[in-house]
Amino acid sequence: MADSEGNKLWGGRFVGDTDPIMEKFNASITYDRRMWNADIQGSKAYVKALEKAKLVTESEMDDILQGLDKVSEEWSKGTFEIKPNDEDIHTANERRLKELIGSAAGKLHTGRSRNDQVVTDMRLWMRDAISTLKDDVIQLINTMVERSAAEIDVLFPGYTHMQRAQPIRWSHWILSYAVALTRDTEQLEEIRTRVNVLPLGSGAIAGNPFGIDREFLRTELSFDAVSINSMDATGQRDFVVEFLFWASLCLTHLSRMAEDLLLYSTKEFSFITLSDAYSTGSSLMPQKKNADSLELIRGKAGRVFGRCAGFLMTMKGLPSTYNKDLQEDKEAMFDCYDTAHAVLQVTTGVISTLKINPGAMQAALSPDMLATDLAYYLVRKGVPFREAHSCSGKAVFLAESKNVSLNELTLQDLHTASPQFDSDVSAVWDYTSSVEQYSAPGGTAKNSVTGQIQHLRSWLAKHRK
Amino acid sequence: MADSEGNKLWGGRFVGDTDPIMEKFNASITYDRRMWNADIQGSKAYVKALEKAKLVTESEMDDILQGLDKVSEEWSKGTFEIKPNDEDIHTANERRLKELIGSAAGKLHTGRSRNDQVVTDMRLWMRDAISTLKDDVIQLINTMVERSAAEIDVLFPGYTHMQRAQPIRWSHWILSYAVALTRDTEQLEEIRTRVNVLPLGSGAIAGNPFGIDREFLRTELSFDAVSINSMDATGQRDFVVEFLFWASLCLTHLSRMAEDLLLYSTKEFSFITLSDAYSTGSSLMPQKKNADSLELIRGKAGRVFGRCAGFLMTMKGLPSTYNKDLQEDKEAMFDCYDTAHAVLQVTTGVISTLKINPGAMQAALSPDMLATDLAYYLVRKGVPFREAHSCSGKAVFLAESKNVSLNELTLQDLHTASPQFDSDVSAVWDYTSSVEQYSAPGGTAKNSVTGQIQHLRSWLAKHRK
Amino acid sequence: MADSEGNKLWGGRFVGDTDPIMEKFNASITYDRRMWNADIQGSKAYVKALEKAKLVTESEMDDILQGLDKVSEEWSKGTFEIKPNDEDIHTANERRLKELIGSAAGKLHTGRSRNDQVVTDMRLWMRDAISTLKDDVIQLINTMVERSAAEIDVLFPGYTHMQRAQPIRWSHWILSYAVALTRDTEQLEEIRTRVNVLPLGSGAIAGNPFGIDREFLRTELSFDAVSINSMDATGQRDFVVEFLFWASLCLTHLSRMAEDLLLYSTKEFSFITLSDAYSTGSSLMPQKKNADSLELIRGKAGRVFGRCAGFLMTMKGLPSTYNKDLQEDKEAMFDCYDTAHAVLQVTTGVISTLKINPGAMQAALSPDMLATDLAYYLVRKGVPFREAHSCSGKAVFLAESKNVSLNELTLQDLHTASPQFDSDVSAVWDYTSSVEQYSAPGGTAKNSVTGQIQHLRSWLAKHRK
Amino acid sequence: MADSEGNKLWGGRFVGDTDPIMEKFNASITYDRRMWNADIQGSKAYVKALEKAKLVTESEMDDILQGLDKVSEEWSKGTFEIKPNDEDIHTANERRLKELIGSAAGKLHTGRSRNDQVVTDMRLWMRDAISTLKDDVIQLINTMVERSAAEIDVLFPGYTHMQRAQPIRWSHWILSYAVALTRDTEQLEEIRTRVNVLPLGSGAIAGNPFGIDREFLRTELSFDAVSINSMDATGQRDFVVEFLFWASLCLTHLSRMAEDLLLYSTKEFSFITLSDAYSTGSSLMPQKKNADSLELIRGKAGRVFGRCAGFLMTMKGLPSTYNKDLQEDKEAMFDCYDTAHAVLQVTTGVISTLKINPGAMQAALSPDMLATDLAYYLVRKGVPFREAHSCSGKAVFLAESKNVSLNELTLQDLHTASPQFDSDVSAVWDYTSSVEQYSAPGGTAKNSVTGQIQHLRSWLAKHRK
Repeated sequence: MADSEGNKLWGGRFVGDTDPIMEKFNASITYDRRMWNADIQGSKAYVKALEKAKLVTESEMDDILQGLDKVSEEWSKGTFEIKPNDEDIHTANERRLKELIGSAAGKLHTGRSRNDQVVTDMRLWMRDAISTLKDDVIQLINTMVERSAAEIDVLFPGYTHMQRAQPIRWSHWILSYAVALTRDTEQLEEIRTRVNVLPLGSGAIAGNPFGIDREFLRTELSFDAVSINSMDATGQRDFVVEFLFWASLCLTHLSRMAEDLLLYSTKEFSFITLSDAYSTGSSLMPQKKNADSLELIRGKAGRVFGRCAGFLMTMKGLPSTYNKDLQEDKEAMFDCYDTAHAVLQVTTGVISTLKINPGAMQAALSPDMLATDLAYYLVRKGVPFREAHSCSGKAVFLAESKNVSLNELTLQDLHTASPQFDSDVSAVWDYTSSVEQYSAPGGTAKNSVTGQIQHLRSWLAKHRK
Repeated sequence: MADSEGNKLWGGRFVGDTDPIMEKFNASITYDRRMWNADIQGSKAYVKALEKAKLVTESEMDDILQGLDKVSEEWSKGTFEIKPNDEDIHTANERRLKELIGSAAGKLHTGRSRNDQVVTDMRLWMRDAISTLKDDVIQLINTMVERSAAEIDVLFPGYTHMQRAQPIRWSHWILSYAVALTRDTEQLEEIRTRVNVLPLGSGAIAGNPFGIDREFLRTELSFDAVSINSMDATGQRDFVVEFLFWASLCLTHLSRMAEDLLLYSTKEFSFITLSDAYSTGSSLMPQKKNADSLELIRGKAGRVFGRCAGFLMTMKGLPSTYNKDLQEDKEAMFDCYDTAHAVLQVTTGVISTLKINPGAMQAALSPDMLATDLAYYLVRKGVPFREAHSCSGKAVFLAESKNVSLNELTLQDLHTASPQFDSDVSAVWDYTSSVEQYSAPGGTAKNSVTGQIQHLRSWLAKHRK
Repeated sequence: MADSEGNKLWGGRFVGDTDPIMEKFNASITYDRRMWNADIQGSKAYVKALEKAKLVTESEMDDILQGLDKVSEEWSKGTFEIKPNDEDIHTANERRLKELIGSAAGKLHTGRSRNDQVVTDMRLWMRDAISTLKDDVIQLINTMVERSAAEIDVLFPGYTHMQRAQPIRWSHWILSYAVALTRDTEQLEEIRTRVNVLPLGSGAIAGNPFGIDREFLRTELSFDAVSINSMDATGQRDFVVEFLFWASLCLTHLSRMAEDLLLYSTKEFSFITLSDAYSTGSSLMPQKKNADSLELIRGKAGRVFGRCAGFLMTMKGLPSTYNKDLQEDKEAMFDCYDTAHAVLQVTTGVISTLKINPGAMQAALSPDMLATDLAYYLVRKGVPFREAHSCSGKAVFLAESKNVSLNELTLQDLHTASPQFDSDVSAVWDYTSSVEQYSAPGGTAKNSVTGQIQHLRSWLAKHRK
Repeated sequence: MADSEGNKLWGGRFVGDTDPIMEKFNASITYDRRMWNADIQGSKAYVKALEKAKLVTESEMDDILQGLDKVSEEWSKGTFEIKPNDEDIHTANERRLKELIGSAAGKLHTGRSRNDQVVTDMRLWMRDAISTLKDDVIQLINTMVERSAAEIDVLFPGYTHMQRAQPIRWSHWILSYAVALTRDTEQLEEIRTRVNVLPLGSGAIAGNPFGIDREFLRTELSFDAVSINSMDATGQRDFVVEFLFWASLCLTHLSRMAEDLLLYSTKEFSFITLSDAYSTGSSLMPQKKNADSLELIRGKAGRVFGRCAGFLMTMKGLPSTYNKDLQEDKEAMFDCYDTAHAVLQVTTGVISTLKINPGAMQAALSPDMLATDLAYYLVRKGVPFREAHSCSGKAVFLAESKNVSLNELTLQDLHTASPQFDSDVSAVWDYTSSVEQYSAPGGTAKNSVTGQIQHLRSWLAKHRK
């Protein structure tokens, strides 16, 4: 019996065999091995706490620490060998430790449960992941800000409802996404605070019965705080769900930006040209240059959201504490991390290498985009805005009827829309002075955009640490 | 033409008629009227800023302010009459203002767009909504904490994987949810910070062209900050998505708690009895008393998540700036608020009125739940935990084979599992001393639970403001 | 006691009062009243079956039938008065029946439970809803097919990856969505089959104890089949979930079409102009004409999917049979129906009234879109396609380097790409003959598109019934 | 240049290098290699069609066919070597073919695009996948039906709202899920019909220009039909979304069943005992036997739904035709297939090996579950059901007040609830005769359950093929 059971952690309880499909279904080693380092870190801290609590001797502790270092080395060098009964990374590491140091290994789990062990590992792992992602986002924001500063004088059409609205600065557009990414960064910092809480010492559900020094563990593992309640600590995965949602919202921002850039890179818009490094060709059409990078960026938001939706649905259906359904947490977490990490880097590559076509941008500005300015002209002469808007609308209609540009209407034409138009109306037809009107904070005037750049540079200095 | 167009904001531009289904499809007044007060607040601040910028005279400002107060009064009294062309609350209020004070009303929209107006209104509305929800959560946490304090001596089975695991305090279970709700509260506070940012003065896309004093507007409307970039300010709805997700996660916590309580209120568990106020009967079966309140609480998490998923899907598919698709934001926001507000209150009602059945709770504690303690007994005698776990497992198996309770095994029986068992093993079979072992922070010992209660009372004092 | 309980269906069981928030939370009358007619139909059939089973007398049956007709009349005329204790449409109708005919009304529910009653009502309601939606889709397909037939000679660029790919017929584009909608129709017909199954006679869970003739009920209510198992019949809502998903996929098709049309209606593409009836203006910018209808169509797919995701999440978390959580089914069902019904009609309006701009479409065709044809020219001379593709690619590169159109390369230029080019290559530069190549079924040649039109006309004839 | 480009399909077009992260991001070979066989099947059929169209000679065709067989053999034997530039399975196979047979390989792609190739491969692959899943479901239904037949005499409590409702047969419960699975099977068959449509011959967007015989291709590859429109054929992934949703709904059924079984396997219910093969122990608690298999089954519904939600979100945001975002289709498809395949098999294992505890089931039947029968007793004496329900409710209340079982009330007691009670009321207190009342089709009487079994056996015979 013992033989057929191998070294399963729960030993001597079961008499039946296991369905091989069930074995595979149940095992997580194929993906949770990725947390090998976090698992070893956690165990090293735990054995020190056991020694403090007199549950292992100093010499046993030393053996265990050295054994764990050896296991770590094997993982680092790629020589760690996974055995058939290693159902997860925790079992694998402990099995190997026992092979290396013998029965003292059996003391490492004293008062610890896989329930508090696994969630400790995940938090350690995610803390690093968040750090990397924050660097990725910061690098992207920095690229955007510097590009904005360099190309601040380029004007192009601003769109609402996908229709030309008003002339704006190209930099103003770039910064609109940089600003969204600063919110993403701040949210990520907040999530880190909730991730960086020590669950170790919670046992399976009831807590730790050997008076383990959790404050010591916290310091040892550099957590910010100690979890408040052992049932919550072992059974909740809020930090995972929050992270999955974070990735969904952040990638939604990049999806929207990609959609803009895909529009701008159509032949019809021709505002930008992607670097070949971020484009691909067609297996059929020799002339095609597809902005695959942008399409992948756009598409990945769906993938990541799917992970969030799926895991939240799983979690929603559960009673409290640990249930095996929660095993879904790790693949979702890894996949969202990998995806966000790649998307952010590719986006930085795209933004830093694309070429703009200022001629096409300039050519796309048209006098009808100044219809609001025509109304403002009247407003400045004292006409209430609603009336001015209506007069300008009449002018637009007249120009369309006569099939001329709005700026080609004669003063006489304009008088049919409002008697207040005068010869100085010609000053309206200047795109540069149009954008310079928007000098209130957040606007597209040069000083406002410069202000945004300064604001973001300060923000970067602060958040880069 | 003017007649058939009525008072639509865009006036004199269109010559065709509108499909009535399209009209209805396009209109939002049936639900956004709910923001009437926020809309008026925003307009009052804006007209003051216009006066400061010399775009309206002091007397025009006074007329507008008084007119807006009159409109507000009509809404308060329920006498405001919505007209067929009032497609949204902004149009309705401005139309009514014009009827009341004449053409000066036409100056109110100077330099403002519906794009910055609507998002200002939403932020004002949501700020209040968040405040109410925070009160709801705080009240629920308080109820839980006080109930925990009162019933701290009640023990019952703790479950993992829906199986009896270890004896715990009933209060420990309650507090596990209170702790989750403190995270929800902290997240809500963070979201409030991101909500409480002034977008007014961003225009449709390019900014405000009349040098409006946005800092003045901020103070006037008690926002914490001014938005950085006008395109982002008018085109993003992150604060809505964040809120919808918040509601999803918060209600998922309550769903999990409801699931526990539904289990506990089955005949088979019989740990709790719901107040009649939160139960209903069956139209067919006279004996039935269903915990409908708990089922509704459990089910609503799905509803709220659906709103989050739906709106995020809509947003993900968009290019930047305002697109009409974003009109989906408001119904989602209102529905999630209403649902969360009701669920939180009902949960407080349920928790404060349910009766526990300490006898049934006590009776459900069984000696096999002390198998871990049996292993710990050996650990305390120096046996490595893994070996101790295996010995205890053998004892469990033996008891099952002999069809006796674990505590009914003789010392002789126990010796077949481990020679280290001695007569003092009888001390293991005490549920109260079992729970008292878990005295590390976060555990289920009385001092640990008391510590949790103290922690939460301080937390409440701080977050109640 | 009886007083404070009013006429609640479960009578004399409870002694406590109900929380008013709980009351409101629990009640569904505000939305399920919409099923008043289905509820009355179901009750009329049921009382006839009761009479056949000798549980009511013929005269009692007549009284009940007449009473129900009276209730029906009140709903039709809008005179039915909802009372405070009418928590749902079933309670309301039965309460009113009792007022009208007295205690015989109390026999109507014999052997019936709200569990089988409500799901019967939903199935009756949805059967009609599906019928209406099918008509909507059929009308839209018909509009598309007829427009395709009328404009079959119009060419414009086909895009993949949002980049110009190859010249195609405008009708080919339209038909690509018509074809998707035929799948939607077929799926809807399949769902109808699963909806049109009679659950009545299943009781609350165990079945009907009075030998009610379910086959009679089936015929009376025109269902196709009788449910197989009473627990499944009362506790499943698959037909609702399937319907919500159907709406999600159908509206995703329309969302993608709307996205194309939004692109085509940008100034930059200028391929189409929406009717004013489906456009709106801007509150700020007088020249703006926004394709709001298309944006709403695009956005609604998210809303509808949200309902599907939300309800599935709710359902996933449940054990078998009826649980109150399922009350979420109806609002989701109604909202998806209303939304799909409006979106389909508005889409038909948009498609039937938009104007195309054939000049702009023609002007957007460019010689590089014939690069594949250039490769095919070589293929026809025996060059393996991969090599031909490469040669054509070199020609494209050469034209770009020389800053000329692909068709402006000299024969000498082309020879540097492949020696096989000859003077007959000039025949390649003809858009009409290019599209005529694609004559295999499903292609964009005139005969292929005509074939598609014929196929769809036959399909319409068959599915219109 | 050519060197740095390697053998990328689009050859001689690009001059820049590619970002390695972008390369990896873009490549799909790590997962789409799984379709190697479908890819080769499709290519074999296509080269035959090319030969028929005189685009390759018979001898070239033979070379290509033999080369493809060699490639196939390498995959089968596991000797196929993936090279760094093999970005997807299509490129890999063609690259290898060229190595094996030289430049004739370059003719295989004539008139074909990766757009129609990839979707042909996916449909071939999914056709097989559906076949396997259908077998899985059929096997599970069969197991359920046979178990139901064997244990038809076992009674236990039926629950609604998680509260004891009425006595039912255990088999009736099992069959309620078998019936749901028959709907799943029928839906899968419908989806197969929509999957089994040939897209090959659609090119990239415009169709096939060489008059390829698509009917021949259809026959060669055993498809049921030929796609109608080339743009739809290459740009839609409805069959994938439908499949993902199918898996979501099917696994939701199994999730609900698992939830029931988890309840039944708690100590408190003790109705069933899982085989050790489908249980696991605890790393901490020696007595624990957790129903991990059921928890995994329950949890996987979320995972699968997440894939559906994610991919639908990606697809919703797209314009028509192929966009690279669609690359998300394959991982979602594979993962849902693998998950559903494992879950269905494990469920069959669980159902076929679990042991029921008829004693505990019987003991859980309590007289209050016959309160409806008590009301029916009165109904049979002519009391209207509503009044009878109320009288029975009074009896229940009385029994509770007196703290006796409902069947322990004296006739005198019962008279206070209704004067119609007589001594024959004692016949009500028999669980077997209670269930035998429910003899209408679909009910829990023995004949009804037998009818369900017969119905399902016929269904199985028909759907097994």
